[in-house]
Amino acid sequence: MSTSPSLSQLHDPNAFLRRHLGPDAAEQQAMLESLGLASRTELIEQTVPPAIRLNRALDLPAALSEEAALSKLKAYAGRNQVWTSVIGMGYHGTITPNVILRNVLENPGWYTAYTPYQPEIAQGRLEALLNFQQMTIDLTGLAMANASLLDEATAAAEAMALAKRIAKSKSNAFFVDENCHPQTLSVVQTRAEGFGFELIVGPVDNLASHQVFGALLQYPDTHGEIRDLRPLIEHLHAQQALACVAADLLSLLMLTPPGEMGADVVFGSSQRFGVPMGYGGPHAAYFACREEFKRGIPGRIIGVSKDARGNVALRMALQTREQHIRREKANSNICTAQVLLANIASLYAVYHGPEGLKRIAQRVHRLTTILATGLERNGIRRVNQHYFDTLTLDVGGAQTAILESASAARFNLRILGGGKLGLSLDESCDEQTVDTLLDIFCGADHGLKVADLDAEMLASGIPDSLARSSPYLTHPVFNAHHSETEMLRYLKQLENKDLALNQSMIPLGSCTMKLNATSEMIPITWPEFANVHPFAPVEQARGYKAMIDELEAWLCAITGFDAICMQPNSGAQGEYAGLLAIHKYHESRQQGQRDICLIPSSAHGTNPASAQMAGMRVVIVECDAAGNVDLEDLKAKAQAAGEHLSCLMATYPSTHGVYEEGIRDICEVIHQHGGQVYMDGANLNAQVGLARPADIGADVSHMNLHKTFCIPHGGGGPGMGPIGVRAHLAPFVANHPVISLEGPNAENTAVSAAPWGSASILPISWMYIAMMGPQLADASEVAILSANYLAQQLTGAFAVLYTGRNDRVAHECIIDLRPLKAETGISEEDVAKRLMDYGFHAPTMSFPVPGTLMIEPTESEPKAELDRFIEAMLSIRAEITQVQNGTWPAEDNPLKRAPHTLADITGVWDRPYSIAEAVTPTAHTRQHKYWPTVNRVDNVYGDRNLFCACVPVDDYR
Amino acid sequence: MSTSPSLSQLHDPNAFLRRHLGPDAAEQQAMLESLGLASRTELIEQTVPPAIRLNRALDLPAALSEEAALSKLKAYAGRNQVWTSVIGMGYHGTITPNVILRNVLENPGWYTAYTPYQPEIAQGRLEALLNFQQMTIDLTGLAMANASLLDEATAAAEAMALAKRIAKSKSNAFFVDENCHPQTLSVVQTRAEGFGFELIVGPVDNLASHQVFGALLQYPDTHGEIRDLRPLIEHLHAQQALACVAADLLSLLMLTPPGEMGADVVFGSSQRFGVPMGYGGPHAAYFACREEFKRGIPGRIIGVSKDARGNVALRMALQTREQHIRREKANSNICTAQVLLANIASLYAVYHGPEGLKRIAQRVHRLTTILATGLERNGIRRVNQHYFDTLTLDVGGAQTAILESASAARFNLRILGGGKLGLSLDESCDEQTVDTLLDIFCGADHGLKVADLDAEMLASGIPDSLARSSPYLTHPVFNAHHSETEMLRYLKQLENKDLALNQSMIPLGSCTMKLNATSEMIPITWPEFANVHPFAPVEQARGYKAMIDELEAWLCAITGFDAICMQPNSGAQGEYAGLLAIHKYHESRQQGQRDICLIPSSAHGTNPASAQMAGMRVVIVECDAAGNVDLEDLKAKAQAAGEHLSCLMATYPSTHGVYEEGIRDICEVIHQHGGQVYMDGANLNAQVGLARPADIGADVSHMNLHKTFCIPHGGGGPGMGPIGVRAHLAPFVANHPVISLEGPNAENTAVSAAPWGSASILPISWMYIAMMGPQLADASEVAILSANYLAQQLTGAFAVLYTGRNDRVAHECIIDLRPLKAETGISEEDVAKRLMDYGFHAPTMSFPVPGTLMIEPTESEPKAELDRFIEAMLSIRAEITQVQNGTWPAEDNPLKRAPHTLADITGVWDRPYSIAEAVTPTAHTRQHKYWPTVNRVDNVYGDRNLFCACVPVDDYR
Repeated sequence: MSTSPSLSQLHDPNAFLRRHLGPDAAEQQAMLESLGLASRTELIEQTVPPAIRLNRALDLPAALSEEAALSKLKAYAGRNQVWTSVIGMGYHGTITPNVILRNVLENPGWYTAYTPYQPEIAQGRLEALLNFQQMTIDLTGLAMANASLLDEATAAAEAMALAKRIAKSKSNAFFVDENCHPQTLSVVQTRAEGFGFELIVGPVDNLASHQVFGALLQYPDTHGEIRDLRPLIEHLHAQQALACVAADLLSLLMLTPPGEMGADVVFGSSQRFGVPMGYGGPHAAYFACREEFKRGIPGRIIGVSKDARGNVALRMALQTREQHIRREKANSNICTAQVLLANIASLYAVYHGPEGLKRIAQRVHRLTTILATGLERNGIRRVNQHYFDTLTLDVGGAQTAILESASAARFNLRILGGGKLGLSLDESCDEQTVDTLLDIFCGADHGLKVADLDAEMLASGIPDSLARSSPYLTHPVFNAHHSETEMLRYLKQLENKDLALNQSMIPLGSCTMKLNATSEMIPITWPEFANVHPFAPVEQARGYKAMIDELEAWLCAITGFDAICMQPNSGAQGEYAGLLAIHKYHESRQQGQRDICLIPSSAHGTNPASAQMAGMRVVIVECDAAGNVDLEDLKAKAQAAGEHLSCLMATYPSTHGVYEEGIRDICEVIHQHGGQVYMDGANLNAQVGLARPADIGADVSHMNLHKTFCIPHGGGGPGMGPIGVRAHLAPFVANHPVISLEGPNAENTAVSAAPWGSASILPISWMYIAMMGPQLADASEVAILSANYLAQQLTGAFAVLYTGRNDRVAHECIIDLRPLKAETGISEEDVAKRLMDYGFHAPTMSFPVPGTLMIEPTESEPKAELDRFIEAMLSIRAEITQVQNGTWPAEDNPLKRAPHTLADITGVWDRPYSIAEAVTPTAHTRQHKYWPTVNRVDNVYGDRNLFCACVPVDDYR
Repeated sequence: MSTSPSLSQLHDPNAFLRRHLGPDAAEQQAMLESLGLASRTELIEQTVPPAIRLNRALDLPAALSEEAALSKLKAYAGRNQVWTSVIGMGYHGTITPNVILRNVLENPGWYTAYTPYQPEIAQGRLEALLNFQQMTIDLTGLAMANASLLDEATAAAEAMALAKRIAKSKSNAFFVDENCHPQTLSVVQTRAEGFGFELIVGPVDNLASHQVFGALLQYPDTHGEIRDLRPLIEHLHAQQALACVAADLLSLLMLTPPGEMGADVVFGSSQRFGVPMGYGGPHAAYFACREEFKRGIPGRIIGVSKDARGNVALRMALQTREQHIRREKANSNICTAQVLLANIASLYAVYHGPEGLKRIAQRVHRLTTILATGLERNGIRRVNQHYFDTLTLDVGGAQTAILESASAARFNLRILGGGKLGLSLDESCDEQTVDTLLDIFCGADHGLKVADLDAEMLASGIPDSLARSSPYLTHPVFNAHHSETEMLRYLKQLENKDLALNQSMIPLGSCTMKLNATSEMIPITWPEFANVHPFAPVEQARGYKAMIDELEAWLCAITGFDAICMQPNSGAQGEYAGLLAIHKYHESRQQGQRDICLIPSSAHGTNPASAQMAGMRVVIVECDAAGNVDLEDLKAKAQAAGEHLSCLMATYPSTHGVYEEGIRDICEVIHQHGGQVYMDGANLNAQVGLARPADIGADVSHMNLHKTFCIPHGGGGPGMGPIGVRAHLAPFVANHPVISLEGPNAENTAVSAAPWGSASILPISWMYIAMMGPQLADASEVAILSANYLAQQLTGAFAVLYTGRNDRVAHECIIDLRPLKAETGISEEDVAKRLMDYGFHAPTMSFPVPGTLMIEPTESEPKAELDRFIEAMLSIRAEITQVQNGTWPAEDNPLKRAPHTLADITGVWDRPYSIAEAVTPTAHTRQHKYWPTVNRVDNVYGDRNLFCACVPVDDYR
């Protein structure tokens, strides 16, 4: 009788790895052979400089299967206690409409999309973002809004920076109402320090006694008080200063919007519009300002433009601001948004409409009114006179007893000094919540019934003079999708317009659009992770702590750093946080004069912007012809900086897609001159398991969890940019004013609103590392293999601009279209747009080198998909030849006319190429055609005629 | 100071109702006005006969909000205990790949699709089903497979019926191996009784002593034994009888397939291929047979055909069998499948591929081998000599103690008589499972380690002579989608080909394609519902019981019946179950001779088929010119039947879409003659809250939970067809051999494999009723309003065939295309296909009247969508005029050429109409074009050249 294979023989330690990788073993072999290589090992030896090789397995636990990892994480989740949190402070319970939960937040069609740099294949989410801007405009009473910022606290800091840019006041001081949320205050303090602003924090009544360039007010304030802002704003305007107002979005449905009171900037969180609290994020901050500031508004803005056929088409406006200008003069490094979360919030408004939202606000307010009345009748003193949803109560010596009762009922209140307690009600509260709170504050024998109180004519907590009278959300989009069927189809229509990873490769250089595995995504909507308030007592978040601690340990093992700061919620935020730590470190050693930051000319624009914000002077280091840092120039500039040298910011592998051989020398030079090395982690995907930033010489580096560690791009956010630091920098990273962190010095202020940034998406990266274990190195190797395969297959047709040792590239490659453009007039943009007709998202365009395309295939792309992409590129090259040889006119050919839409081919066809050549150039497109929904978008028109709100429906026809 | 609105003023009792309904109040008013009506009340008075009106609110609890309903159901779910069930018996733990879970089972693009009657807009799921057939063919070793049946037990009954149809043996006896699963045996008993077959149940060794037309064998059998079937099959063939084999799908990866041993029919469950146990279903049964039986195979078959351009196109083959032939001669009433579940199973095979599946099977077998060895060494006697995953153990007097240990470890074993216990391992088991089982059986001090046993060369439990040697799943589709990225894109490509409710209206007469709300769908994938074994002790399923009990009570309140039988898992199954109950009732009163079933000529084809199967003689009652039952003919035929009258089967409102005024009289006539009334519940959506079947006179009726109560169609299954009965019939409904039900007589056999049918989708209907409460009546009223609005708007352009009182229709209307066809040659099929170009699924074609279209808009369709549909229909009517007046030739016009594909317009265009007229005939299609992926499919070619397996990839090019 035969024997059966043993369990150990059947054990599959690479079960998830094989799901994560695109090419299987045989396909990898074929790719290696086409490169003339025998093995991946040989490729890596040829590619990665020996000096930096790790040469051992990562010290990580063995890979778990998908089920085992989910089961382990579920056990962690079970250690979180989900209490009723009425803490408020900018985080509130909310109900995500299930049709949005399932069809947006849990749908790869939405969450795997990239930032809409290519608007022709992103009209769906651009429309949702335009709705977000319209909602912001309507609710704030201002004329201009952006497409979201990272969180309310950083939005406050951006408001301050905007005020400085715009205000005519010559003052260097900024006033902050002491009754702003503490985390907002803390982030503003951090930012003011970097900019060198004087920050005045005090009661708003003192505002009149200061000369300032702007002030930050909160409405309602952190204790719930609602104040008429008009006198304050008038005072500010009188001194040519700007009034910036943090406002609660739900309250604006009932309160006079600050814009109508004259505020210049209004911002806040849109979290309570359907986005779970998630222990602090991700959420989208909204940001609105006056029309006349529109070219100064930070962040991304969606604008209305027209396409080549003159039809309405949406796009990111003023895009050139992002990477190409400012740089050394920037006072914001924001180049991202929270697209997925902003879209959930705007879709929440679409789903509920103005009447539904008003009902929600009124109900929250009525519950608060009933509670306030009940507490008052039981003799409990309320500190704030007026209120929308927040009550601050002076309970004196009863505080301890009340907190014990609250604890018994599993309620979290806000604990304030001086015998005070705070609470904020929200959409998820009901009569029972109020009843329980009355019991908690008054004891079980208070004798009040919610229904009885409700039957009374109770005075509203909102002053009559501040009751909202203006209409909002009158655009049809907010009034036409209220049945679930309509909502579902609207979501589907938007999704269908966009190209995301669930349809094809998005080969973006340095953005690492790899697989976002379903098993990684599932935990983020578990209620145990989704419904925890960021300021809940840490004892209730033991599951989060276990998960975060482990993730930090793993990231340390991967990078070689000694500690991780999880707070930065974007890559740029990480840069900023890292530079601040360097600065504080120097200061701690009495070297506070060190303020020069060296940055290679090839750097991403956020690098100099972040340095500026951290109060550093930027000095650019040249690159040589091969794209590498010019070591001599570096030495000279480090020398010149001398005792003023603070640090170097370098990307590794370089933004040119090459492992620079001299990286250790570069780091050495900086250290010799007393500087620190900041390594930009954008390209970490080419290092994991092969080399470690700290081993190479970095003192600090951010890790884009949304690139290397599988957090999806969400159509342009969320992201996470935690930083790793060596031990000497660990005391100098961000802390938090509400939840004190272990590690950093207690007095350190915050860089983001929440202690651990966007904590609720950390399970994604946790799952990825848990399921990959030491095999993470395989992913890096296959990413490098795929890039080299692509580069080799395209060579001949196109010029690969930079290569490293043995003519290999790292995990991405740049192809140079400038020679072809010179000869034929066909530009990199034409190629990018033409790729859409082939069903592909374009590679990164003109970064880091104008006139080029940077291609990063990642390890997750199947060989068949790589081959389809190669086929498309070669076919496009052949098309260029047809222009070159005159077969097609220079301006009337499939490249210049790209992308093609259905409208093109259903009208009169009088072009020198065929309809089939236009829209179905390959076998794959004949089978699986993806349609761009607009023709090439007119960027110039859009920026000249900046319009950032919803357009009349008829304009679409 | 102003006061705020009170909570009671803000309370929104219709919160979900408004999400469920398409038209809002203002839109309803506009629709009413166009009908010349002031109110919905007036419409209902004009429409529903006063004699049957309920005239009071349904006795249901007040509607809950979505959150409250989910919260209540979650509490029920929490009362289920999810133990490790190694009971086996056809239900096994399995791991649904998360990429399939999220993107298929939890994706409305898959679950809201309809049965693929219109293949041009269903190529995605047709491909997945073809893969299912290929998988079945490969694993069973037979040449022909269908696209799934309801469950393994009913598949066994279908096999028996097929054997009778096919076998040349004149015997009336069918042999069943006593070691088949008990539920299979029970369903076969039920079915044999209806057909009047003699059933011989006994040990297979006795087979040789019987003359039979067929036999049912199980492989491995219910106790795990694996027997060489060849001698048995040879014996059967020698007497011209058929060998039908129930086989475990996973075991076929390691065992010689029955087809290779000569079996004629092989079937079984595909549940363990990724479909959760769900307390019994829904799951897909697979069914395979010899090539030569292909025109006799029951159920739906996907066949390969070609389209008008000669390209490969898939379709349901032999479709005309379903409703148009057989009827009174049928011996199967199967006209559905378990599409969603079959697709999950086939996608599971696509995801794992042959190697992956083999590894799973080998691992399960190895775990079983280790366990078997360990038990043996501890002196526990195994009853079955050979095994794949199932062990039957004779533990004698230790049974009680072992069961106590199992209970302490939260393990469910199979309990057998005579001191025996059974267990079956599965994909979700691991070393720990085996270890625990060893502890349970041998006590904690057994001294065996799984790893030690695994290190030994253990003999396989599979006899060498029965080890599989033939290859399987060699088609590229099973070998190309193993990375998650590839799988995700494959799923998306398939989804993109299909039109489902998330894209547009599916206006199918009598199929009630209403909203499947997300909140209704969420609970079905909760582990507490998904992972319960149907034969787990009922104490572990208290949550299920509470939910089912409540749902039954609600359905009683809605229908007026006294009891519900939840077992039938399709509408046709419900018909059959109801007729059996009637038959048993007559028998109990010594009226067993009553065997005549009266059926109106307008009835759905399943009615006579079900009657046939229940052993009844069908007598057709004529309809009058208005489509109503001819009362005189009914009386005459009831009279003629006399003491042989068993029952009437009637649909209400009629299949003609009309509330027949005489329904009470009709029921009265039947009762006067001692008969019972079976009401087909297909049109229950027009009664809920307005009238009740039992009040009208029905004794029994099935309720299509997948029509009226929101279970989605899943692309052609699952469904649920529970029956309601009046008290006198309650003892005669189905019971179950494993889990004894309260209510029906203990000796009653089963109609389905699981006690409560497809229990895991019952939460959908529970949620719907919980969230609607008595406002269910509003849904019915709006459904009627929408149908009348459509009928009125189309009148003039088309003839509405039947109307009832005041010229109103019920919830659907039939438009007659025969006059137009006579005049222009444009048929109802041309209109149906042309609607695809407009982005719509066709209405029901040629049922119940040939040459017509039956349209049911349901209450969930927005007015804007109704108006778009009307626009499309009127535009099509104008196109017909262009044919009529000779502008377009009779054979070359957009109607005859419909649907149009991308291939049409990218080639040479030489038609008398424009490309824009072809593919973007409306503003909506210009904005949101849905593309049929094949041209009109050639039905005749497909049926003549029946081919039901995957085609070579090149054939698609």
